[in-house]
Amino acid sequence: MILDGKKVALDLRERLRETVLSYTEQGFRAPKLAILLVGNNPASETYVTNKIKACREVGIEAEKIALPADVTEQQVLEQIQRLNQDDSVDGFIVQLPLPEHISEPKILNAVSYRKDVDGLTPMSMGLTIQGQPALRSATPSGIQSLLAYYHIPTAGKHVVVIGRSNIVGKPMAIMLMQRPYLSLPNMTASSMGDATVTVCHSKTQGLTDICRTADILIVAAGSPKLVTKEMVRPGATVIDVGINRIEDSSSPKGYKLVGDVDFENVEPVAGAISPVPGGVGPMTIASLLQNTVQAYKQHIKQ
Amino acid sequence: MILDGKKVALDLRERLRETVLSYTEQGFRAPKLAILLVGNNPASETYVTNKIKACREVGIEAEKIALPADVTEQQVLEQIQRLNQDDSVDGFIVQLPLPEHISEPKILNAVSYRKDVDGLTPMSMGLTIQGQPALRSATPSGIQSLLAYYHIPTAGKHVVVIGRSNIVGKPMAIMLMQRPYLSLPNMTASSMGDATVTVCHSKTQGLTDICRTADILIVAAGSPKLVTKEMVRPGATVIDVGINRIEDSSSPKGYKLVGDVDFENVEPVAGAISPVPGGVGPMTIASLLQNTVQAYKQHIKQ
Repeated sequence: MILDGKKVALDLRERLRETVLSYTEQGFRAPKLAILLVGNNPASETYVTNKIKACREVGIEAEKIALPADVTEQQVLEQIQRLNQDDSVDGFIVQLPLPEHISEPKILNAVSYRKDVDGLTPMSMGLTIQGQPALRSATPSGIQSLLAYYHIPTAGKHVVVIGRSNIVGKPMAIMLMQRPYLSLPNMTASSMGDATVTVCHSKTQGLTDICRTADILIVAAGSPKLVTKEMVRPGATVIDVGINRIEDSSSPKGYKLVGDVDFENVEPVAGAISPVPGGVGPMTIASLLQNTVQAYKQHIKQ
Repeated sequence: MILDGKKVALDLRERLRETVLSYTEQGFRAPKLAILLVGNNPASETYVTNKIKACREVGIEAEKIALPADVTEQQVLEQIQRLNQDDSVDGFIVQLPLPEHISEPKILNAVSYRKDVDGLTPMSMGLTIQGQPALRSATPSGIQSLLAYYHIPTAGKHVVVIGRSNIVGKPMAIMLMQRPYLSLPNMTASSMGDATVTVCHSKTQGLTDICRTADILIVAAGSPKLVTKEMVRPGATVIDVGINRIEDSSSPKGYKLVGDVDFENVEPVAGAISPVPGGVGPMTIASLLQNTVQAYKQHIKQ
């Protein structure tokens, strides 16, 4: 079975569109997301354009704030303070990566966790790790929604996560090992947990044997075609978080996007598998929208 | 080999005493820890008394702030605000558990992470998960110091953690899977990581088989004698975080303290094992002192 992130994201976005409409029809203003973009990385430009388009489709107002590449760290921090305080903004994100002269942790630490719709601040992660209500990391949330949509249970299952990044591996592991928090607002789809979780990474010994014990294998290693069929127990679910550019002379762009999983090789043995592109990627954007709507609902309640 | 937490804690405390002395001899004031105790739970009283004694032995000034059991949540929050702002206090802890009418997350969320020497606030955990400098959870830090003292490596090893609590299981898993952060101040002993980590809990299936794959087994389940020799690979390191009271008519108190590991049964097969009492317990208090001295050093630098 192919886990069709594009379709599931569309479904989630349609539900968000209806939610937003139910509020604006009552006379509330529309939700608003701001995106801070520093410099002119072409890939970042594309991502931001896609996010703005996705926002508008569900009725979220989206504003791009572009700062030049030579802006100072202090100037970025001032923008963030302004956005933290601006009551017309429900959530905002800082598009990564930042130019090298700007400290990423320093910038993220300054974002108010109430508006942290990427779920990347230490406070959001800390609330998540403690099972408190929080805007949760967008990519792991998207993966939970994908699993939920296809009714793939996690309770009592062995989940192996390859990768220990701040944005995927570590929060994913935490969210899947926890007790489900069904009572949290807007968390139905991302409330799955109760898994036994193993986190592997570049220092892991015996990776193949560990992966073969997984009921669900989540790969966020940033290494093209790392996972082959020898590493997958027949019938297991495989979630591919990787987005790698590899040379491809047959493509007009000169490259193509591949995941961390050797899809052609693994697909025949996997019980379910997410493709790249069209798997986790669209779910991440949908989670960003979901977090924005959640922040909006909290915000207008006050 | 017995991992003698009492001895290692004594050694760590002696080094802390020398550090404090090196500052006070230069004319700086002594570090100060405040302990907020709500109600009159006898076990809590004993813990607080022990912590105050331990502080004084290393030259840390310790103040107990006792509030009656019927204090309101608002009054506790006001105390916390006062302690957050009091420049003469380097760190403080709220002795748990709190009376039922007071929300533990609400109280912990109010503690400034700069003074959070128990390392239990969401912000401290979030900084820890992101590998940023932080006051780290006292019990997991103590376990890292214990492993470091006995030169038990974690890099590339398989660590199995039983238990997913906010104070032990989850932060322990995170700290052991991360890249070591040798550059952090005062973090030498707690800088070990690079392990492959599996977290098990009450919903885990096949616990025995998983435990048998562990090079290091850390048990924080709160279940007396849960771990027997069948669950331990010969030669593995076993860390017992449990503290359970069980009836014992031969003891004058009518009970004795046992861990989550059946010590007599497991000790012959384990390569190294921490006893209860005298293992992780003393290390937790030593970590609290270490965090207090670390907060102090940051504080007087400003």
